Amino acid sequence: MTIVGVGLIGGSLGLAAKQAGLVARVAGVSRSAANRAVALRRGLVDEACEDLAGPLGASDLVVLATPVAAITRLMPEVARGIPAGALVTDVGSVKGPIAAAGDTALPDGRFVPGHPIAGKERSGPEAAAADLFAGAPCILTPTAHSRPDAVERIAALWRGVGGAVLQLEPAWHDDLFASVSHLPHLVAFALMDAVLALERDGRRVRYSGGGLRDFTRVAGSDPVMWRDIFLMNRDMVLKSLAEYRGALDRFETAIRTGDGDALAALMARARAAREEIAHRP
Amino acid sequence: MTIVGVGLIGGSLGLAAKQAGLVARVAGVSRSAANRAVALRRGLVDEACEDLAGPLGASDLVVLATPVAAITRLMPEVARGIPAGALVTDVGSVKGPIAAAGDTALPDGRFVPGHPIAGKERSGPEAAAADLFAGAPCILTPTAHSRPDAVERIAALWRGVGGAVLQLEPAWHDDLFASVSHLPHLVAFALMDAVLALERDGRRVRYSGGGLRDFTRVAGSDPVMWRDIFLMNRDMVLKSLAEYRGALDRFETAIRTGDGDALAALMARARAAREEIAHRP
Repeated sequence: MTIVGVGLIGGSLGLAAKQAGLVARVAGVSRSAANRAVALRRGLVDEACEDLAGPLGASDLVVLATPVAAITRLMPEVARGIPAGALVTDVGSVKGPIAAAGDTALPDGRFVPGHPIAGKERSGPEAAAADLFAGAPCILTPTAHSRPDAVERIAALWRGVGGAVLQLEPAWHDDLFASVSHLPHLVAFALMDAVLALERDGRRVRYSGGGLRDFTRVAGSDPVMWRDIFLMNRDMVLKSLAEYRGALDRFETAIRTGDGDALAALMARARAAREEIAHRP
Repeated sequence: MTIVGVGLIGGSLGLAAKQAGLVARVAGVSRSAANRAVALRRGLVDEACEDLAGPLGASDLVVLATPVAAITRLMPEVARGIPAGALVTDVGSVKGPIAAAGDTALPDGRFVPGHPIAGKERSGPEAAAADLFAGAPCILTPTAHSRPDAVERIAALWRGVGGAVLQLEPAWHDDLFASVSHLPHLVAFALMDAVLALERDGRRVRYSGGGLRDFTRVAGSDPVMWRDIFLMNRDMVLKSLAEYRGALDRFETAIRTGDGDALAALMARARAAREEIAHRP
């Protein structure tokens, strides 16, 4: 197995797959010398390479675990470099454009797009953990081209590291995650930006116990990873943002007009949705 | 000591003050029979009353711990009912209007407005805990009328239950908390509302691991408490909201125009502010 990108997700998958005995040998590819060193030291991979070309030819399976723009960019080189019969999957948070790039590069159906829902406050190979995927939803979004046996082999990989595999259509995945993941990140980044804009004498962030702190995990996410996600899923993110602006309008109108009943009703509805999330298994 | 409102904050203060030996006897006032029963059973208070009138006449200190609209509404009755020399404080999240109401009702300076920064996902007397204020910033916002000896006695109460006392002007407190607390709550409630509006077949909230879940503690807050806060601190909340809409505009423009550099720079700046919060003692 070759893993391109040995950050939190790629590094954890290498470690977990090795510990579960799912793969004979894991090669990790990273342009960062520091990340390669950490991945080797922590045993996330058996070998670490700067360049893709080396390990591709000996791979049965290639997992693309870079930021999403690099996944589409690398796809043709990966398709050219792998042996006949080798499979390719990815872990990107946007699926439509990646599915299309994979179908183009591997029209015989050996690409199976994926997205494990696992995260942590910290990123990078230092934060990688063998149990990152235990109980985590691991979404596969097979395209019309994806071969059933390839889908089953990728599903077996994720089940083997503890994930709960489910399948979604690529377009529906991107619509869904625009609202439940991309929009919340945008909202949290924008909130930090607004507080910074209001900042006076560096005093505001010191009092963040009252609510702001809950947003800090999300706003601490990697800017490059999220730049790619927002741009690649632009239409769906903008659709979710428009809906969110509508919700802000409803709250603002109720506050501005002093309509306490409308305000309490909006919050009670939001709270009920939150109860569903909080008590979800 | 009489505590009006035996929810999370009022109930925890009763329990903590009794355990620290700061008060001889605590009376709790609540219109809710269920909350009175819980407060008595858990020993948060020594006696529980439905009506204010009873315990006021025997109180050295009255703590108003209801939603903020009730604090201003009850102030005249409290001022009329307490003995000469008794002090009054509160724990409300908005300070300007409450400070003004207290100065009007008690022009001799026996009202000291307060705001302990302590919260939990759950509210109500069942969630009360003696250590809730351990290490918590407990803000006092004395008015021009507040007597220095009264301020010192209230400060001693909060220090006695483990709080770190600091003083702010009421107007600056409301400006500050509009941005670091009230706005984040508004943002989280609106986010849940937007996801509900986008909901299709009840499927979205099931995938909330990717970011939405971090907002759920905030969106689970009490609608009545927050209705009062948003309405009482309306001008400052609307000012913060306007700043936040400006931040959303900056992100939206960068996404719409595909300006990845601007987008990454906005997120890097937000992430840096978050680092300051996350590593704050």
